[in-house]
Amino acid sequence: MAGKVFFSVSMSLDGFVAPESPEDLMGQQWMELHAWAFPLRFFRENLKLGAGGEEGLDNDVARETFARTGASVMGKRMFDVGEHAWPEEAPFHTPVFVVTHEQRDPWQRPGGTTFHFVNDGIEPALEQARAAASERDVRIAGGGATILQYVNAGLVDEFSIALSPVLFGSGIRLFDGVDASRVALEPVRSESSSRVTHLTYAVHPR
Amino acid sequence: MAGKVFFSVSMSLDGFVAPESPEDLMGQQWMELHAWAFPLRFFRENLKLGAGGEEGLDNDVARETFARTGASVMGKRMFDVGEHAWPEEAPFHTPVFVVTHEQRDPWQRPGGTTFHFVNDGIEPALEQARAAASERDVRIAGGGATILQYVNAGLVDEFSIALSPVLFGSGIRLFDGVDASRVALEPVRSESSSRVTHLTYAVHPR
Repeated sequence: MAGKVFFSVSMSLDGFVAPESPEDLMGQQWMELHAWAFPLRFFRENLKLGAGGEEGLDNDVARETFARTGASVMGKRMFDVGEHAWPEEAPFHTPVFVVTHEQRDPWQRPGGTTFHFVNDGIEPALEQARAAASERDVRIAGGGATILQYVNAGLVDEFSIALSPVLFGSGIRLFDGVDASRVALEPVRSESSSRVTHLTYAVHPR
Repeated sequence: MAGKVFFSVSMSLDGFVAPESPEDLMGQQWMELHAWAFPLRFFRENLKLGAGGEEGLDNDVARETFARTGASVMGKRMFDVGEHAWPEEAPFHTPVFVVTHEQRDPWQRPGGTTFHFVNDGIEPALEQARAAASERDVRIAGGGATILQYVNAGLVDEFSIALSPVLFGSGIRLFDGVDASRVALEPVRSESSSRVTHLTYAVHPR
């Protein structure tokens, strides 16, 4: 049985997932957006930051999100930022399919991450990711514009939002440009830690 | 001891609290935004729609929001829409202070709602509402622009959002124009029913 196509992002209460400019990615509010993740045992393990870290709901969510993912798809903007920001052992540990016009050979990183560059659009990238993921799920990793392309194309089955108690006021909105007339949401799960609310929705055509 | 100043709204997952045009207020997505409230026992009681209705978490939240409110403040846009939409027994059953340039005598409705028209801005309107509410809380009822004025002026202590599983794509965003550099949020409570997620935050200066 084929896996699901999902995305999982941290979103500010006012709907933003990233600052307008990649140079602001280490800014105060961006750090607050992801503040729930940094203390986690899984986060420390996955980035080889050493032992320790917190367990509990947030850690379980992060670990399950990783465990279900057999392959990821990402846009060029996310890749371009990450290429210089990820550690040598990029944190995916699976095949990653980058939707881009750039023609480039696969880029294999230590630890099991290989980036494949797909030049013919979002659907072929997803098909390759599905094949690579086998029975596991495909994660649309980001950024926001790429996630929205998949949502509007009706290709996303489910998504999770870690809703952080922070307001951005400006930046890149997750749902800016969503084709609201075609997307219906069904609440699947909602759980809160002291830091963040984890919301999961199934996506249906309307 | 003086009460708190709060607001409580239903918000779409993409951050909208109302359609762009008041004429669309009865549209499909607006109805979906508030769909969690219509079946409630409290909603039926408060609008005199007859006996029955659902109990449970959503009903408790709606009833508590009403019970804590000793007076409300609203903007002219909300009042102008409501003046023609509310039943004769307007659903507030407390004094309501309308921030407006219109000079008008108090408008007393059966059932305990009296609208007072305040012409000298948001702070005097709030002071009058505080006095009227006595030890109960003051609710900034809406609309979105008025709520934001109070948030940006640092006058809101706490707020609750009923986050509905619906995407609008366009309309009036609750936090559009928020002074994010000055507002810090502290999660107070988060609970979900099958229909909606109730989120409560305390507001602090940052």
